[in-house]
Amino acid sequence: MNRVITIERSADTSERLDAARFREMMRDRGTLVVNLMSSPGSGKTSLLESTAKRLQGRYGMAVLVGDIATDRDAQRLAPWMPAIQLTTGGACHLPRSLVQQGWERLDTQPLDFLFIENVGNLVCPSSHDLGEHLRVVILATTEGDDKPAKYPKAFRTSQALVISKLDLLPYVPFSVDAATRDAREIRPDLDLFPLSALRDEGVDRWCDYLTRTRERLLAPDSPPSDR
Amino acid sequence: MNRVITIERSADTSERLDAARFREMMRDRGTLVVNLMSSPGSGKTSLLESTAKRLQGRYGMAVLVGDIATDRDAQRLAPWMPAIQLTTGGACHLPRSLVQQGWERLDTQPLDFLFIENVGNLVCPSSHDLGEHLRVVILATTEGDDKPAKYPKAFRTSQALVISKLDLLPYVPFSVDAATRDAREIRPDLDLFPLSALRDEGVDRWCDYLTRTRERLLAPDSPPSDR
Repeated sequence: MNRVITIERSADTSERLDAARFREMMRDRGTLVVNLMSSPGSGKTSLLESTAKRLQGRYGMAVLVGDIATDRDAQRLAPWMPAIQLTTGGACHLPRSLVQQGWERLDTQPLDFLFIENVGNLVCPSSHDLGEHLRVVILATTEGDDKPAKYPKAFRTSQALVISKLDLLPYVPFSVDAATRDAREIRPDLDLFPLSALRDEGVDRWCDYLTRTRERLLAPDSPPSDR
Repeated sequence: MNRVITIERSADTSERLDAARFREMMRDRGTLVVNLMSSPGSGKTSLLESTAKRLQGRYGMAVLVGDIATDRDAQRLAPWMPAIQLTTGGACHLPRSLVQQGWERLDTQPLDFLFIENVGNLVCPSSHDLGEHLRVVILATTEGDDKPAKYPKAFRTSQALVISKLDLLPYVPFSVDAATRDAREIRPDLDLFPLSALRDEGVDRWCDYLTRTRERLLAPDSPPSDR
């Protein structure tokens, strides 16, 4: 029986250094980099639409949109901010290198926020540092409140948890308390944002959090930039 | 800058041979092996509960349940059929080797159906042949009808598409027609099962499909067992 041997360069060392450099540079430019992770269909694009509508005119924003195939999400977001589609061609997460390429193609005025919409996947993206300052995991009420315990790494490596599709709560077996309890058992300081992008409920509090987090990042006495 | 080199044995050759052998052996034993793939929270476990309730007493069944962490899904299914939890410890899909280990620990009478509930992930599992006869992708109405185009491999490699959570259709922007059209553009012969496990609607048709697929597999003149 033949064995096929493949040799891969580990992403770890070089990607991690590269991510740290990018994070530092973006902080110096006054740009908060936000990495959004979730399952397919949890509402990353809808949340970004609502966010951009609320912040536009006051802040400079752009988005890098990761997908396996198609540019549908970038098309949805392009009316609200510059949107670059990053297509992984099968890979289950965005690699740092693709984020760099996307960012280099953004030819805009200074940005206050650079959003990264990761590939829809609750597993792989959590292992890859893209140079973000803020990592956010989104969990839809329709996915079940058992997901933090079942996919712990996505919750352990995020600073904020958005519970989306709150408008569907009357129709699904989901307890915000149970999901929050499990998530905070994994990461006690997780910031929590239950919201409905469809009904525009809770989005204001989320946007306040984004702008406050950016101010904290840019404060002269803020600790060395690291997630 | 140091580069870390890792050497990995490709799963391809040996896993593929091994999967083909398992498929052949299970067919000889009269067991239809069904691999269920979907995003987290699309309703794999709920569908298996409904299926087991309907088929129990008439058919011998067991389930291998894949998860990153916890045995919650196996606990849910254990009242209905023998359930073995396969915990990947971080990996984003079930590997063939873990399925083999799980199956060897099943000490039951002859099985008519062996269900494999894959890790919740619409990307990675589609690249791994677990030795199943039937691969099924589940898409919940709450995930959006754009998912077949965005995650094509899961749909291209499946024989059947279950559209779950049909009870939530009035509350979400989802077109069964649009999802089906996109999915059949990727794979024209995809069998379609819209259903609500919560309301027990459409489950009878799905179970008929399972039993007919098993009969076809076991027919003496059936073509060589391959997905």
